Parts: sequence; structure tokens; C-alpha cells
Amino acid sequence: MTTTTFKIACIQLSVTSDKPENLKRAKNKIIEASKNGAKLIVLPECFNSPYGTQYFDQYAEFIPNGESIKTLSEAAKETKAYIIGGSIPERDETTKKLYNTCTVYDPEGNLIAKHHKVHLFDIDIPGRITFQESKTLDPGNSLTHFDTEYGKIGIGICYDIRFPEMAMIAARKGCVAMIYPGAFNLITGPLHWEPRDMNATYNAWGHSTVVDPNGQIVATTDHEEDIIYAEIDLNRFDHIRESIPLNDQRRFDLYTNVAK
Amino acid sequence: MTTTTFKIACIQLSVTSDKPENLKRAKNKIIEASKNGAKLIVLPECFNSPYGTQYFDQYAEFIPNGESIKTLSEAAKETKAYIIGGSIPERDETTKKLYNTCTVYDPEGNLIAKHHKVHLFDIDIPGRITFQESKTLDPGNSLTHFDTEYGKIGIGICYDIRFPEMAMIAARKGCVAMIYPGAFNLITGPLHWEPRDMNATYNAWGHSTVVDPNGQIVATTDHEEDIIYAEIDLNRFDHIRESIPLNDQRRFDLYTNVAK
Repeated sequence: MTTTTFKIACIQLSVTSDKPENLKRAKNKIIEASKNGAKLIVLPECFNSPYGTQYFDQYAEFIPNGESIKTLSEAAKETKAYIIGGSIPERDETTKKLYNTCTVYDPEGNLIAKHHKVHLFDIDIPGRITFQESKTLDPGNSLTHFDTEYGKIGIGICYDIRFPEMAMIAARKGCVAMIYPGAFNLITGPLHWEPRDMNATYNAWGHSTVVDPNGQIVATTDHEEDIIYAEIDLNRFDHIRESIPLNDQRRFDLYTNVAK
Repeated sequence: MTTTTFKIACIQLSVTSDKPENLKRAKNKIIEASKNGAKLIVLPECFNSPYGTQYFDQYAEFIPNGESIKTLSEAAKETKAYIIGGSIPERDETTKKLYNTCTVYDPEGNLIAKHHKVHLFDIDIPGRITFQESKTLDPGNSLTHFDTEYGKIGIGICYDIRFPEMAMIAARKGCVAMIYPGAFNLITGPLHWEPRDMNATYNAWGHSTVVDPNGQIVATTDHEEDIIYAEIDLNRFDHIRESIPLNDQRRFDLYTNVAK
């Protein structure tokens, strides 16, 4: 039976070049979120490593044998919460390929899902930012949804959010949430999250945000280290979906259903 | 050859139950917009009639023989501008079906495109709003794009905006703009446009808005009668699309291309 309400926590973490320190902070924040009642706890993209193609190889781990995986598994078990482990650079043991990988743990600490970022962040805004994840990373080749007692949940990583098909598919497959751990920057952050003033020194965009099915922001924050919380009421989701019954109104005679 | 800049005007009109008066006001506003340099002028949904299923039959016209069509064709010819004629209730002469129809005119006054609203506005938010366009209207059965010297343009009407496939298809077919004449209300307006305070007496949502390819609002207004203007620079569009090259990054191996 599906539990109809649960608390989600999104952890916004100050990431340093010190991996053991990053893991320790992540675990402490998970415990803090759990003490505040969170049953589904989300970490940011690349939470164990500085974000940059020059770092991915050095900070990469094998899955499931890496230390980040062990830390997150323990944290899930200890807090009895679902952990969506942001992402880490992953080195595939067989192919030696590098991925930007999100791992997911159930409240017993089992690794229950793994998402490789499928849309690599290759952009070139002349004079502002040039970034090519594909220089070092390989893209994933599948979409990721996993089951919990709160319902099915979909995962994307950062730039994946720019491609609406992933969320459309997740929603149509019955997901109750689409979660995108991210590490946008000050140039692309405002283009993918909501806009804000750009007069600041460089840092990750932050602005962790929970948005409800009406498109309304129910929790958000600035760029500092923080945890945001939102109470998710699945009955309210059902109510919204019944009020504006998009599922019955789509015109798949006029356009393709991306979820098929 | 494509002209690379043009001015668009969106007319927000106070609509009354007096049809000749509505047409006169619409024409005057078109002339005003043209005097201010607009080359593509947009009217709102249901601009010749009060909005409501009880009015559609009474205010409906045959196309191209109705008086609204004649007024808009003359206005286009007189201003040498493209007119996107919001929408009017249309009675099909042969089938007798009623449609919510947008007509489009070139600067010579020719009717060059016609869009029947394809997603009828049938919603039921208990205690707040219940509306069933399908009680009196039939839905359209095709998507609408038309060519101008400024590029290809796509049309949807009001609730069509809720179904992202239409805009995705338009963009992928090379449209430079997707235009949605609308007449949202105070309940559904904030859910489909941007949110605002809801403490007001009933009226149409208004808030005509022009949004650029970065998702940034370049012109908007409140609910009063008004005309908003935006200078569209197609070179800037090209620049944005090259900077964040979504077109080359989509993963049609993982999901269907709705535009195919």
C-alpha cells in the first residue's frame, strides 16, 4: 500500500576538494535531515568531488565498491530513509568508461537504482562559459525510475532537466516525483532554474527547489549550504491531476506519446 | 530571404457583449500597434464575443464570410502587417460544427492559416471552476504552422499551451515563435502563466507575455486593456540555439521525437 504523505529533503552542500571531508559532511547532513523527519533525502550532483572535467577521473569510484557508495548505504540504513545520492564520477570496472552517476538506496541501505546522466553538458556561450562533459564522460543509455512505498520516482541529473521528454515519460509512467540533482553555474543556472541577479562571484547555482504539480514552488533556497524540506501529499497530487485531467485530454492522434 | 528583426504586438482587449463594438476596438488597436511599428499583431482568444459556452453559438461566424474575418482582413491590408486574429467561435458551413478558431492574415489581407483549438478546456476544480468547452465545441484535428518573411510561426489557442508537444513540434520544425492567444481566468491563469496574487474580482487573466528562447520574459502586462511590444531579433535566437545546442543533443535513441 502506498503511504500518502512523506517529507522530502534536498541537501545543498558546500563541496571541497577533500573527498573524505565531503563524504563526512554529506553523511552529517543526511542525519540532520532525517532527524527533521525526512524520509527521502537528496544530495547534489557531484557531491564528493569538485565539479569539472579535470577532476572526474581522480575522484571516480567503482560501483558498488567505492567509499561514497559505502557511506551512502550506511547513511540510508542508519536513518531508515531513501537516499538519492546526487551524483559521483563513476569508473566502470569493465569498460573503464567514466559516467556522471546517481545512486539510490532504500531504507535498508540497498543500492536499488543507478542513473547515468544521459544528456552530457556540452555548451559554448562565447565569452561566458564553455564546458564539455563529453571530453571525459560517457553518456548513459537508459532512463531511470524506481519504486518506493511512496510511489515511483524518476531521476535525471542536472542538464537532463533541459530535455522535457524525461519528465513527461516519468509522469506518464506514474512517477510521483522527478528528481534532478544539479550543479548548475551562474550562467546556466538562471536559464534552467528561475532567473535572479547575476552580480556575484563564481559559485555553484544552488537554489535547490521543490515544485508541485501546479508548477508552484513549495520550497527553495539561495546558494548557501542549506537543507530544504517539503511535505509531499500524494492525495493533493491526485486532486490536481483530477481537476485538470491532462492524462485524458492529450491528443496522441496528433502527436506521438513520448512515453510509448 | 528572411528579415532578421521585426516587432510583435500582443493586444489585450476588453471584450464586451457588443460584437460590432468589439470589432471596432480590435481594429483601432491593430492600427495603433501598426503605427508603433508592429509587423505581427496578435489579438486575444474569443475577441469578438464574451467567453463562455452559452455565447459561442450566438457569436459564431462562417469562415471566410463572417464580419470578423472581413474586419481582420481589411485591418491587415490597411496596416500591411500580419494579423493573428486571436480566436472567434466558428460555425462550419457544411458540418454545422462549432470551433474555437484562430485565423491568420498576411499583409495583403489574405487569410493564410486557420487553427481550430485542439485541446478543449474541460476542467473541474471543485468549488472553484468548472468549464466544459466540449459541451458546445468540437476540437480541431491538426497542428498549424505558417510561413512569413520573418520565419515559420506556430499557433495554439489558450489551453493548447498545457500540452508541450505542440511547442516542441513547432520548434523542431523551425518555427521562430509559438503564439497562444488566450483567455485564461483567475483560477487557471496563474497555473498556466506565471503566478500572482489572487485577491481580485473575476475577470480574464490578461497578462499577455512575450518569452524569449531563454525562458526570459521580454514583455508583459497586468489584466487591463493594453498592447505589449517586443522586438524579435532572429540572429539572437540563432545565437541562443547555437550556445546551448539542444537540437544536436536530444537522445532520440531513448525517447521518441514528437515531431516525427
